[in-house]
Amino acid sequence: MQTWTVRPIGFVRSPFTETHQVPRGLGAKHDEEGVLEILPEFEPGLRDIESFSHLFVLWLFDRSEGFSLEGTPPCDTKSHGVFATRSPRRPNPIALTVVRLLRHENNRLHVRGVDMLDGTPILDIKPYLSSIPESELKRGWLAQAEARRAKENTK
Amino acid sequence: MQTWTVRPIGFVRSPFTETHQVPRGLGAKHDEEGVLEILPEFEPGLRDIESFSHLFVLWLFDRSEGFSLEGTPPCDTKSHGVFATRSPRRPNPIALTVVRLLRHENNRLHVRGVDMLDGTPILDIKPYLSSIPESELKRGWLAQAEARRAKENTK
Repeated sequence: MQTWTVRPIGFVRSPFTETHQVPRGLGAKHDEEGVLEILPEFEPGLRDIESFSHLFVLWLFDRSEGFSLEGTPPCDTKSHGVFATRSPRRPNPIALTVVRLLRHENNRLHVRGVDMLDGTPILDIKPYLSSIPESELKRGWLAQAEARRAKENTK
Repeated sequence: MQTWTVRPIGFVRSPFTETHQVPRGLGAKHDEEGVLEILPEFEPGLRDIESFSHLFVLWLFDRSEGFSLEGTPPCDTKSHGVFATRSPRRPNPIALTVVRLLRHENNRLHVRGVDMLDGTPILDIKPYLSSIPESELKRGWLAQAEARRAKENTK
């Protein structure tokens, strides 16, 4: 079977050093602040990112081993398929977190809403473009590009 | 540098066979239906997934080569950092799509909103738990688990 190799683009600086410290389960709040430290070689890839209010962060459950296709999450008493949960024990141990971007400083993104352990490898960062309530969402350069295009179209 | 290996858990069946067919850019609508065909060995991981209305699909830009840290997306005339765009030419060519789940049949998930090419490798599927407007969102087994717990707490 064909496989692919992934590598860190950076690492998370988080107040959590052990799994049990990360709030989880029903109604868990993720208000903790942390830093996404991007490797210097990838810093140019962050240009304009501060124009977005929220980001998707793809990262690795690097301290999880193996996978289990069914399991009981901490917030339930019933077992569910792994793809219907956010369990770390997945065939590809990739995690997804939505964070609020507070500040972009060179190769560092200060964010709110981390649920990763300190030192977690980051695989990718993407803008969060929809589904946050309109009133809270900034669509950054895309909104600007739309405005520019709308202006051009009325010329 | 440490690297990790990822492998497909299944493949996308999509009406798109060539990149230019996929709607992209400002206001692009993704209403096309397709099928997420999960490999039979991973089918148990789909249990209860039909209780969710929307899913995150992580997949590979398997027909993209190399990466570029800055580039001009089709919907703009200005260049942006790759992490502020959804460009396929990323250091880790992983893509993220939110789809609406229409039907779960054994190892097949019929979904609306595909923007992948036919045959695209799928890496992971996760429930979409928040930020879809309340009126459209089903939180599946989690809502049920919450209701059960709320009931227990009032006993």
